[in-house]
Amino acid sequence: MSAKIVTISRQFGSGGRTIGRMAAEKLGVPCYDQELIDRIAEESGLVKAYVEENSENVAGGWLSFTAGRDFYGHSLQDDLFRAQTKVISDCAAAGPCVIIGRCADYILEDDERVLKVFIHASMEKRAERIVSQYGETADDPVHRLREKDKKRKAYYQLYTDRKWGDAANYHLTLDSGALGLETCAEIIAMLAK
Amino acid sequence: MSAKIVTISRQFGSGGRTIGRMAAEKLGVPCYDQELIDRIAEESGLVKAYVEENSENVAGGWLSFTAGRDFYGHSLQDDLFRAQTKVISDCAAAGPCVIIGRCADYILEDDERVLKVFIHASMEKRAERIVSQYGETADDPVHRLREKDKKRKAYYQLYTDRKWGDAANYHLTLDSGALGLETCAEIIAMLAK
Repeated sequence: MSAKIVTISRQFGSGGRTIGRMAAEKLGVPCYDQELIDRIAEESGLVKAYVEENSENVAGGWLSFTAGRDFYGHSLQDDLFRAQTKVISDCAAAGPCVIIGRCADYILEDDERVLKVFIHASMEKRAERIVSQYGETADDPVHRLREKDKKRKAYYQLYTDRKWGDAANYHLTLDSGALGLETCAEIIAMLAK
Repeated sequence: MSAKIVTISRQFGSGGRTIGRMAAEKLGVPCYDQELIDRIAEESGLVKAYVEENSENVAGGWLSFTAGRDFYGHSLQDDLFRAQTKVISDCAAAGPCVIIGRCADYILEDDERVLKVFIHASMEKRAERIVSQYGETADDPVHRLREKDKKRKAYYQLYTDRKWGDAANYHLTLDSGALGLETCAEIIAMLAK
Protein backbone atom coordinates (compact mmCIF):
# COMPACT_ATOMS: atom_id res chain seq x y z
CA MET A 1 0.00 0.00 0.00
CA SER A 2 1.45 3.38 -0.91
CA ALA A 3 -0.95 5.81 0.74
CA LYS A 4 -0.30 9.45 0.15
CA ILE A 5 -3.62 11.05 1.03
CA VAL A 6 -4.54 10.81 4.69
CA THR A 7 -8.13 11.38 5.81
CA ILE A 8 -8.60 12.01 9.52
CA SER A 9 -11.98 11.51 11.14
CA ARG A 10 -11.97 12.36 14.80
CA GLN A 11 -13.99 12.73 17.93
CA PHE A 12 -14.29 16.30 19.15
CA GLY A 13 -11.56 16.97 21.72
CA SER A 14 -9.40 14.00 20.69
CA GLY A 15 -6.66 16.20 19.20
CA GLY A 16 -7.27 14.72 15.74
CA ARG A 17 -6.81 18.07 14.02
CA THR A 18 -3.47 18.65 15.77
CA ILE A 19 -2.35 15.10 14.95
CA GLY A 20 -3.27 15.69 11.29
CA ARG A 21 -1.21 18.88 11.18
CA MET A 22 1.75 17.16 12.85
CA ALA A 23 1.59 14.23 10.40
CA ALA A 24 1.34 16.62 7.41
CA GLU A 25 4.41 18.46 8.65
CA LYS A 26 6.37 15.22 8.98
CA LEU A 27 5.29 14.25 5.46
CA GLY A 28 5.88 17.72 4.00
CA VAL A 29 2.38 17.84 2.49
CA PRO A 30 -0.51 20.33 2.91
CA CYS A 31 -3.12 19.81 5.61
CA TYR A 32 -6.66 20.86 4.64
CA ASP A 33 -8.96 21.82 7.47
CA GLN A 34 -10.23 25.39 7.97
CA GLU A 35 -8.96 26.10 4.43
CA LEU A 36 -11.74 23.81 3.19
CA ILE A 37 -14.40 26.13 4.58
CA ASP A 38 -13.50 28.99 2.21
CA ARG A 39 -13.31 26.69 -0.78
CA ILE A 40 -16.61 24.96 0.03
CA ALA A 41 -18.30 28.35 0.58
CA GLU A 42 -17.05 29.52 -2.81
CA GLU A 43 -18.05 26.29 -4.57
CA SER A 44 -21.54 26.18 -3.03
CA GLY A 45 -22.34 29.90 -2.95
CA LEU A 46 -23.31 29.45 0.71
CA VAL A 47 -22.06 31.87 3.34
CA LYS A 48 -18.94 30.87 5.26
CA ALA A 49 -20.65 30.86 8.67
CA TYR A 50 -23.26 28.38 7.39
CA VAL A 51 -20.56 26.13 5.93
CA GLU A 52 -18.60 26.24 9.17
CA GLU A 53 -21.62 25.32 11.26
CA ASN A 54 -23.00 22.63 8.96
CA SER A 55 -20.13 20.93 7.15
CA GLU A 56 -19.70 18.29 9.85
CA ASN A 57 -22.76 18.54 12.02
CA VAL A 58 -26.40 17.89 11.58
CA ALA A 59 -27.48 21.17 13.18
CA GLY A 60 -30.12 20.57 15.80
CA GLY A 61 -30.34 16.86 15.06
CA TRP A 62 -32.55 14.82 12.78
CA LEU A 63 -35.75 16.80 13.24
CA SER A 64 -34.39 20.15 12.15
CA PHE A 65 -32.63 18.38 9.31
CA THR A 66 -35.81 16.90 7.89
CA ALA A 67 -37.73 20.12 8.53
CA GLY A 68 -35.29 22.05 6.30
CA ARG A 69 -36.10 19.97 3.19
CA ASP A 70 -38.09 21.29 0.27
CA PHE A 71 -40.82 19.48 -1.66
CA TYR A 72 -38.26 17.29 -3.45
CA GLY A 73 -36.53 16.26 -0.19
CA HIS A 74 -33.61 18.51 -1.09
CA SER A 75 -31.95 20.80 1.47
CA LEU A 76 -29.19 23.39 1.73
CA GLN A 77 -27.23 20.76 3.61
CA ASP A 78 -27.31 18.55 0.51
CA ASP A 79 -25.95 21.44 -1.62
CA LEU A 80 -23.24 21.82 0.97
CA PHE A 81 -22.38 18.12 0.83
CA ARG A 82 -22.13 18.22 -2.97
CA ALA A 83 -19.79 21.22 -2.83
CA GLN A 84 -17.76 19.49 -0.11
CA THR A 85 -17.44 16.38 -2.27
CA LYS A 86 -16.17 18.48 -5.18
CA VAL A 87 -13.64 20.42 -3.06
CA ILE A 88 -12.31 17.32 -1.31
CA SER A 89 -11.96 15.46 -4.61
CA ASP A 90 -10.04 18.44 -6.03
CA CYS A 91 -7.68 18.46 -3.02
CA ALA A 92 -6.99 14.75 -3.51
CA ALA A 93 -6.48 15.22 -7.25
CA ALA A 94 -3.84 17.87 -6.54
CA GLY A 95 -1.65 15.27 -4.78
CA PRO A 96 -0.51 14.01 -1.37
CA CYS A 97 -2.17 15.79 1.58
CA VAL A 98 -3.91 15.36 4.91
CA ILE A 99 -7.64 16.14 5.04
CA ILE A 100 -9.37 16.68 8.38
CA GLY A 101 -12.96 15.52 8.85
CA ARG A 102 -15.91 16.22 6.54
CA CYS A 103 -16.49 12.59 5.52
CA ALA A 104 -13.35 12.70 3.34
CA ASP A 105 -12.80 8.97 4.05
CA TYR A 106 -16.15 8.23 2.43
CA ILE A 107 -15.85 10.76 -0.41
CA LEU A 108 -12.45 9.36 -1.42
CA GLU A 109 -13.10 5.74 -0.62
CA ASP A 110 -12.44 4.42 -4.13
CA ASP A 111 -9.08 6.17 -4.28
CA GLU A 112 -6.38 3.60 -3.57
CA ARG A 113 -3.92 6.26 -2.43
CA VAL A 114 -6.02 6.99 0.65
CA LEU A 115 -5.13 6.04 4.25
CA LYS A 116 -8.27 6.33 6.38
CA VAL A 117 -7.66 7.21 10.02
CA PHE A 118 -9.99 7.68 13.00
CA ILE A 119 -8.80 9.38 16.20
CA HIS A 120 -10.65 8.98 19.49
CA ALA A 121 -10.03 9.26 23.23
CA SER A 122 -11.84 8.64 26.48
CA MET A 123 -14.47 11.13 27.62
CA GLU A 124 -12.20 12.09 30.53
CA LYS A 125 -9.18 12.90 28.34
CA ARG A 126 -11.31 14.81 25.85
CA ALA A 127 -12.96 16.85 28.58
CA GLU A 128 -9.53 17.82 29.90
CA ARG A 129 -8.46 18.80 26.41
CA ILE A 130 -11.41 20.98 25.47
CA VAL A 131 -11.19 22.87 28.73
CA SER A 132 -7.46 23.51 28.21
CA GLN A 133 -7.93 24.39 24.49
CA TYR A 134 -11.21 26.29 24.44
CA GLY A 135 -11.64 27.29 28.09
CA GLU A 136 -14.46 26.69 30.55
CA THR A 137 -18.04 27.56 29.60
CA ALA A 138 -21.28 27.52 31.56
CA ASP A 139 -21.95 24.18 29.89
CA ASP A 140 -20.28 21.14 31.48
CA PRO A 141 -17.48 19.80 29.17
CA VAL A 142 -18.88 16.27 29.17
CA HIS A 143 -22.24 17.64 28.07
CA ARG A 144 -20.55 19.69 25.32
CA LEU A 145 -18.74 16.57 24.11
CA ARG A 146 -21.89 14.45 24.10
CA GLU A 147 -23.76 17.08 22.05
CA LYS A 148 -20.94 17.40 19.55
CA ASP A 149 -20.52 13.60 19.27
CA LYS A 150 -24.21 13.28 18.57
CA LYS A 151 -24.17 15.86 15.77
CA ARG A 152 -21.05 14.53 14.05
CA LYS A 153 -22.30 10.99 14.31
CA ALA A 154 -25.68 11.91 12.82
CA TYR A 155 -23.99 13.82 10.00
CA TYR A 156 -21.63 10.96 9.16
CA GLN A 157 -24.37 8.35 9.23
CA LEU A 158 -26.70 10.46 7.16
CA TYR A 159 -24.26 10.96 4.30
CA THR A 160 -22.31 7.72 4.41
CA ASP A 161 -24.84 5.20 5.74
CA ARG A 162 -22.08 3.85 8.00
CA LYS A 163 -21.50 3.63 11.71
CA TRP A 164 -19.36 6.45 13.05
CA GLY A 165 -16.30 5.03 14.82
CA ASP A 166 -16.70 1.49 13.50
CA ALA A 167 -13.13 0.14 13.08
CA ALA A 168 -14.12 -1.54 9.80
CA ASN A 169 -14.42 1.87 8.08
CA TYR A 170 -10.78 2.80 8.70
CA HIS A 171 -7.32 1.45 7.97
CA LEU A 172 -6.16 2.70 11.34
CA THR A 173 -7.83 3.94 14.52
CA LEU A 174 -5.87 5.39 17.42
CA ASP A 175 -6.67 6.29 21.02
CA SER A 176 -4.83 9.61 21.25
CA GLY A 177 -5.50 9.89 24.98
CA ALA A 178 -3.63 6.67 25.72
CA LEU A 179 -0.96 6.83 23.01
CA GLY A 180 -0.22 10.57 22.92
CA LEU A 181 -0.52 12.97 19.97
CA GLU A 182 3.12 12.71 18.88
CA THR A 183 3.03 8.89 18.68
CA CYS A 184 -0.22 9.00 16.69
CA ALA A 185 1.30 11.48 14.22
CA GLU A 186 4.41 9.29 13.87
CA ILE A 187 2.42 6.17 13.05
CA ILE A 188 0.32 8.01 10.47
CA ALA A 189 3.39 9.55 8.82
CA MET A 190 5.12 6.16 8.80
CA LEU A 191 2.16 4.52 7.05
CA ALA A 192 1.60 7.37 4.59
CA LYS A 193 5.20 7.64 3.42
CA MET B 1 2.14 4.79 28.16
CA SER B 2 4.38 1.81 28.77
CA ALA B 3 2.28 -1.09 27.52
CA LYS B 4 3.74 -4.50 27.93
CA ILE B 5 0.74 -6.79 27.63
CA VAL B 6 -0.88 -6.82 24.20
CA THR B 7 -4.41 -8.13 23.74
CA ILE B 8 -5.41 -8.92 20.18
CA SER B 9 -9.06 -9.17 19.22
CA ARG B 10 -9.55 -10.08 15.59
CA GLN B 11 -12.00 -10.91 12.89
CA PHE B 12 -11.77 -14.49 11.69
CA GLY B 13 -9.48 -14.63 8.64
CA SER B 14 -7.83 -11.25 9.31
CA GLY B 15 -4.48 -12.81 10.22
CA GLY B 16 -4.72 -11.42 13.76
CA ARG B 17 -3.27 -14.56 15.30
CA THR B 18 -0.27 -14.48 12.96
CA ILE B 19 0.24 -10.76 13.63
CA GLY B 20 0.14 -11.46 17.38
CA ARG B 21 2.81 -14.16 17.04
CA MET B 22 4.99 -11.90 14.91
CA ALA B 23 4.68 -9.02 17.40
CA ALA B 24 5.46 -11.33 20.34
CA GLU B 25 8.58 -12.54 18.53
CA LYS B 26 9.73 -8.96 17.90
CA LEU B 27 9.14 -8.16 21.58
CA GLY B 28 10.68 -11.40 22.85
CA VAL B 29 7.62 -12.23 24.97
CA PRO B 30 5.29 -15.26 25.04
CA CYS B 31 2.18 -15.35 22.87
CA TYR B 32 -0.83 -17.09 24.45
CA ASP B 33 -3.37 -18.55 22.08
CA GLN B 34 -3.95 -22.31 21.77
CA GLU B 35 -1.94 -22.67 25.00
CA LEU B 36 -4.83 -20.98 26.77
CA ILE B 37 -7.17 -23.83 25.86
CA ASP B 38 -5.29 -26.39 27.98
CA ARG B 39 -5.03 -24.05 30.91
CA ILE B 40 -8.69 -23.05 30.75
CA ALA B 41 -9.73 -26.70 30.49
CA GLU B 42 -7.68 -27.53 33.55
CA GLU B 43 -8.98 -24.54 35.52
CA SER B 44 -12.63 -25.18 34.65
CA GLY B 45 -12.67 -28.98 34.68
CA LEU B 46 -14.35 -28.84 31.26
CA VAL B 47 -13.12 -30.99 28.40
CA LYS B 48 -10.70 -29.42 25.96
CA ALA B 49 -12.95 -29.82 22.92
CA TYR B 50 -15.73 -27.93 24.69
CA VAL B 51 -13.35 -25.15 25.68
CA GLU B 52 -12.02 -24.93 22.13
CA GLU B 53 -15.49 -24.66 20.64
CA ASN B 54 -16.95 -22.28 23.20
CA SER B 55 -14.21 -19.99 24.48
CA GLU B 56 -14.84 -17.37 21.79
CA ASN B 57 -18.14 -18.28 20.23
CA VAL B 58 -21.70 -18.40 21.36
CA ALA B 59 -22.33 -21.87 19.95
CA GLY B 60 -25.44 -21.96 17.83
CA GLY B 61 -26.37 -18.37 18.67
CA TRP B 62 -28.52 -16.87 21.34
CA LEU B 63 -31.20 -19.51 21.48
CA SER B 64 -28.93 -22.42 22.27
CA PHE B 65 -27.14 -20.16 24.74
CA THR B 66 -30.26 -19.39 26.73
CA ALA B 67 -31.50 -22.97 26.41
CA GLY B 68 -28.34 -24.24 28.15
CA ARG B 69 -29.03 -22.31 31.35
CA ASP B 70 -30.12 -23.96 34.57
CA PHE B 71 -32.79 -22.77 37.00
CA TYR B 72 -30.47 -20.02 38.29
CA GLY B 73 -29.64 -18.71 34.80
CA HIS B 74 -26.20 -20.24 35.11
CA SER B 75 -24.57 -22.17 32.26
CA LEU B 76 -21.44 -24.15 31.43
CA GLN B 77 -20.44 -21.22 29.27
CA ASP B 78 -20.38 -19.00 32.36
CA ASP B 79 -18.11 -21.49 34.15
CA LEU B 80 -15.91 -21.37 31.12
CA PHE B 81 -15.81 -17.57 31.14
CA ARG B 82 -14.87 -17.54 34.82
CA ALA B 83 -12.01 -19.99 34.21
CA GLN B 84 -10.92 -17.95 31.20
CA THR B 85 -10.84 -14.78 33.32
CA LYS B 86 -8.67 -16.53 35.90
CA VAL B 87 -6.22 -17.96 33.33
CA ILE B 88 -5.89 -14.67 31.40
CA SER B 89 -5.35 -12.70 34.61
CA ASP B 90 -2.64 -15.20 35.60
CA CYS B 91 -0.91 -14.80 32.22
CA ALA B 92 -0.91 -11.02 32.63
CA ALA B 93 0.35 -11.29 36.20
CA ALA B 94 3.32 -13.36 34.96
CA GLY B 95 4.55 -10.38 32.89
CA PRO B 96 4.76 -8.99 29.36
CA CYS B 97 3.00 -11.13 26.74
CA VAL B 98 0.63 -11.16 23.79
CA ILE B 99 -2.82 -12.69 24.32
CA ILE B 100 -4.98 -13.63 21.36
CA GLY B 101 -8.76 -13.24 21.57
CA ARG B 102 -11.01 -14.49 24.36
CA CYS B 103 -12.15 -11.02 25.55
CA ALA B 104 -8.70 -10.45 27.12
CA ASP B 105 -9.07 -6.72 26.38
CA TYR B 106 -12.15 -6.65 28.60
CA ILE B 107 -10.82 -9.00 31.27
CA LEU B 108 -7.65 -6.91 31.68
CA GLU B 109 -9.15 -3.52 31.10
CA ASP B 110 -8.17 -2.05 34.45
CA ASP B 111 -4.56 -3.05 33.94
CA GLU B 112 -2.62 0.01 32.80
CA ARG B 113 0.09 -2.10 31.17
CA VAL B 114 -2.34 -3.31 28.52
CA LEU B 115 -2.33 -2.27 24.84
CA LYS B 116 -5.69 -3.24 23.32
CA VAL B 117 -5.59 -4.05 19.61
CA PHE B 118 -8.28 -5.05 17.10
CA ILE B 119 -7.38 -6.53 13.70
CA HIS B 120 -9.84 -6.59 10.81
CA ALA B 121 -9.86 -6.80 7.03
CA SER B 122 -12.33 -6.63 4.17
CA MET B 123 -14.56 -9.63 3.50
CA GLU B 124 -12.72 -10.17 0.21
CA LYS B 125 -9.25 -10.29 1.78
CA ARG B 126 -10.44 -12.54 4.59
CA ALA B 127 -12.12 -14.93 2.17
CA GLU B 128 -8.86 -15.22 0.22
CA ARG B 129 -6.98 -15.87 3.43
CA ILE B 130 -9.22 -18.59 4.87
CA VAL B 131 -9.20 -20.46 1.58
CA SER B 132 -5.40 -20.30 1.40
CA GLN B 133 -4.99 -21.19 5.11
CA TYR B 134 -7.72 -23.72 5.75
CA GLY B 135 -8.60 -24.87 2.23
CA GLU B 136 -11.89 -24.92 0.34
CA THR B 137 -14.97 -26.47 1.92
CA ALA B 138 -18.45 -27.15 0.59
CA ASP B 139 -19.48 -23.99 2.39
CA ASP B 140 -18.80 -20.71 0.59
CA PRO B 141 -15.95 -18.77 2.36
CA VAL B 142 -18.03 -15.60 2.69
CA HIS B 143 -20.77 -17.61 4.37
CA ARG B 144 -18.21 -19.22 6.71
CA LEU B 145 -16.90 -15.77 7.63
CA ARG B 146 -20.35 -14.34 8.26
CA GLU B 147 -21.25 -17.24 10.57
CA LYS B 148 -18.00 -16.93 12.50
CA ASP B 149 -18.32 -13.13 12.78
CA LYS B 150 -21.81 -13.56 14.14
CA LYS B 151 -20.72 -16.02 16.83
CA ARG B 152 -17.68 -14.05 17.97
CA LYS B 153 -19.68 -10.84 18.01
CA ALA B 154 -22.45 -12.41 20.09
CA TYR B 155 -19.92 -13.88 22.50
CA TYR B 156 -18.08 -10.58 22.93
CA GLN B 157 -21.26 -8.59 23.42
CA LEU B 158 -22.69 -11.11 25.85
CA TYR B 159 -19.72 -11.05 28.20
CA THR B 160 -18.53 -7.47 27.80
CA ASP B 161 -21.74 -5.56 27.01
CA ARG B 162 -19.79 -3.71 24.31
CA LYS B 163 -19.95 -3.43 20.56
CA TRP B 164 -17.56 -5.77 18.79
CA GLY B 165 -15.22 -3.80 16.51
CA ASP B 166 -16.08 -0.40 17.96
CA ALA B 167 -12.86 1.67 17.74
CA ALA B 168 -13.55 3.19 21.18
CA ASN B 169 -12.83 -0.19 22.86
CA TYR B 170 -9.25 -0.37 21.58
CA HIS B 171 -6.08 1.70 21.69
CA LEU B 172 -5.33 0.65 18.13
CA THR B 173 -7.25 -0.99 15.29
CA LEU B 174 -5.60 -2.04 12.05
CA ASP B 175 -6.85 -3.15 8.64
CA SER B 176 -4.43 -6.02 8.01
CA GLY B 177 -5.70 -6.51 4.45
CA ALA B 178 -4.70 -2.98 3.44
CA LEU B 179 -1.60 -2.55 5.62
CA GLY B 180 -0.11 -6.06 5.50
CA LEU B 181 0.63 -8.40 8.40
CA GLU B 182 4.28 -7.37 8.82
CA THR B 183 3.45 -3.65 9.09
CA CYS B 184 0.72 -4.39 11.64
CA ALA B 185 3.14 -6.46 13.76
CA GLU B 186 5.74 -3.67 13.57
CA ILE B 187 3.32 -1.00 14.79
CA ILE B 188 2.17 -3.18 17.68
CA ALA B 189 5.73 -4.02 18.71
CA MET B 190 6.71 -0.35 18.48
CA LEU B 191 3.84 0.68 20.77
CA ALA B 192 4.34 -2.17 23.24
CA LYS B 193 8.06 -1.67 23.72
